Amino acid sequence: MEVAQILHMNGGVGDASYANNSLFQRKVISLTKSIRDEAIISLYRNTLSRSLRIADLGCSSGPNALLAVSEIIIAVEMFCRKFNHKSPEYNVFLNDLPGNDFNNLFKSLESFKAKLCDEFETEMGLSYFYGVPGSFYGKIFSNQSMHFVHSSCSLHWLSKVPNGVDNNKSNIYIASTSPSNVYRAYYKQFQRDFSIFLNCRAEELVEGGRMVLTLLGRKSDDPSSKECCYILELLAMVLNDMVLQGIINEDQLNTFNVPWYTPSPSEVKSQVLHEGSFSIDRLEVFEVYWNGFNLNAIEFEMCKSVKDDGYIVAQSMRALLEPLLVSHFGEAIIEEVFNRYQEILIDRMSKDISKFIYVTLSLTRKP
Amino acid sequence: MEVAQILHMNGGVGDASYANNSLFQRKVISLTKSIRDEAIISLYRNTLSRSLRIADLGCSSGPNALLAVSEIIIAVEMFCRKFNHKSPEYNVFLNDLPGNDFNNLFKSLESFKAKLCDEFETEMGLSYFYGVPGSFYGKIFSNQSMHFVHSSCSLHWLSKVPNGVDNNKSNIYIASTSPSNVYRAYYKQFQRDFSIFLNCRAEELVEGGRMVLTLLGRKSDDPSSKECCYILELLAMVLNDMVLQGIINEDQLNTFNVPWYTPSPSEVKSQVLHEGSFSIDRLEVFEVYWNGFNLNAIEFEMCKSVKDDGYIVAQSMRALLEPLLVSHFGEAIIEEVFNRYQEILIDRMSKDISKFIYVTLSLTRKP
Repeated sequence: MEVAQILHMNGGVGDASYANNSLFQRKVISLTKSIRDEAIISLYRNTLSRSLRIADLGCSSGPNALLAVSEIIIAVEMFCRKFNHKSPEYNVFLNDLPGNDFNNLFKSLESFKAKLCDEFETEMGLSYFYGVPGSFYGKIFSNQSMHFVHSSCSLHWLSKVPNGVDNNKSNIYIASTSPSNVYRAYYKQFQRDFSIFLNCRAEELVEGGRMVLTLLGRKSDDPSSKECCYILELLAMVLNDMVLQGIINEDQLNTFNVPWYTPSPSEVKSQVLHEGSFSIDRLEVFEVYWNGFNLNAIEFEMCKSVKDDGYIVAQSMRALLEPLLVSHFGEAIIEEVFNRYQEILIDRMSKDISKFIYVTLSLTRKP
Repeated sequence: MEVAQILHMNGGVGDASYANNSLFQRKVISLTKSIRDEAIISLYRNTLSRSLRIADLGCSSGPNALLAVSEIIIAVEMFCRKFNHKSPEYNVFLNDLPGNDFNNLFKSLESFKAKLCDEFETEMGLSYFYGVPGSFYGKIFSNQSMHFVHSSCSLHWLSKVPNGVDNNKSNIYIASTSPSNVYRAYYKQFQRDFSIFLNCRAEELVEGGRMVLTLLGRKSDDPSSKECCYILELLAMVLNDMVLQGIINEDQLNTFNVPWYTPSPSEVKSQVLHEGSFSIDRLEVFEVYWNGFNLNAIEFEMCKSVKDDGYIVAQSMRALLEPLLVSHFGEAIIEEVFNRYQEILIDRMSKDISKFIYVTLSLTRKP
């Protein structure tokens, strides 16, 4: 499967769009703010570069697409005001796969820039924005042309479904019932992809350049742990039911596997050390509830009463997975799949608190 | 009217898309090839830069969007082969207004790059592509960051409908019946816009950087000359008929004016000299028949028998003007406007050979 040709978040601004269903990714960006701020300010303080070149990889479209970038620029502007520095110029590179809805993203840029200027009473630094279509599992920028690279909720997507997972029948990702070769194949693909990613970015970043990466992962050493696999196991249940009812062909299900991997912190760390170009400044793990809120006990009780909870999660997953599912199973079954998925999610979420685990890395390009 | 928010060529790949109705713009790009080749080779020979930064302004989408860029890269690669130089790296910046169909453009990039590589048996230089949404009547790149700027069939679009053309009733552009203040208002807007354009590019180009610009224009000193105004006078006829028949409101027609200007070579030249940052290497004028072909006498006879001629021109104009017309008159009348326009065009083209006039400029950024 050519993931780079198929994978993209749902475009536009409709009910099933990523733009309207990206609450938990937004939560992730806000939870990692302090790590990003620390990295960009440390970089800027060390270089005082007149022109900052910043890339957001896997930016998608919708309200999240410019969120991290805006926080990065605001952090630098605040620093400049505090120490009475002249603002640098910002060159911002927004990358995603060619199927991403760049049109939607570009149309929001003018109002974004106007809003950003409004935040500051005095003039802020000039900013230039570029769209960069292409897979980040390859070179996308000139050598030593970037100061800061950010990526949130993207790097768990693999470049392809791993080879050698043919016997992962009735599962669509690593599951407790997956044969052990499936675990190994997924991990090997992650190692290969992440290593290429680090290698390319090492070439593209200047010495001392910084990188903050957040990806879906797990805490446990067990790659079939519920914390990372349950959300897709529930979707597999839906698809298996539809096979039993003759709506989906069994062969189709047997050949469908989601091209992502949810690594543990130690898997991420060992790959960075093995690749060798980056030092690790921070490596953190945090949790986000499936519905995008980090709740305390009272909030959780309140949340349980919100009927729309399962809907939110089903729509969020739809915004991510619909293009992959359509490409494999066709358009016709999509509504049915996500209606059933929503029902299962409502049921499970009323009984259990489920969370996504995210791993965040803050790295510095070694000299 | 906020032209930058409204103006764009028709997106997608449908019957009325720019992608499928841009024959004469393609012809223009092919007719200016030698001027572009001369400019890029002269630039490259003088600098032998390891990394060439090339911008195409107003690139639009569809088959033309990458045509000039591909010819520029091929010219440099051929030069490198001939003189046994190592290929440079290419950074290509594709600019258009935010409403342009960048999605369509970005989806074609992979196959474009593959095809370009196929042209050369040995490896060609690395190439990176960026989309740059924004009006070229403002800074869109960092200072001194570009080597070569190209723009074809874009720069006749003004940043706005000129002020002070309220009495241009029943016309939609300069016409022989326009009051003289309308002539002056259009020219003044062109002077202002083109001057800003030159000013911004002067900042963005390196010393010795080159620029090749082609815009719709005229040969005559008379701005109401048929060679530049007739195509819109015929459209105005359609709209006036529809006013008489009560389909369009008279006030709506009276307040509609197309935001473009078709300058003469001397108007273009005097603006370049007045702005002062560029020396003029070449200034040429050429003609393209309305249907996109430059025909000899026999071909013309053949062409007259082709029934689709009026259709081609009407669709080409629709691809350019539809978003502006929809924004002013609404969606409902569009089919009717272009059906009528096609009929008039078929009639006139059977009696007369009509041509667009283009002005091409090759410039060098002064030290």
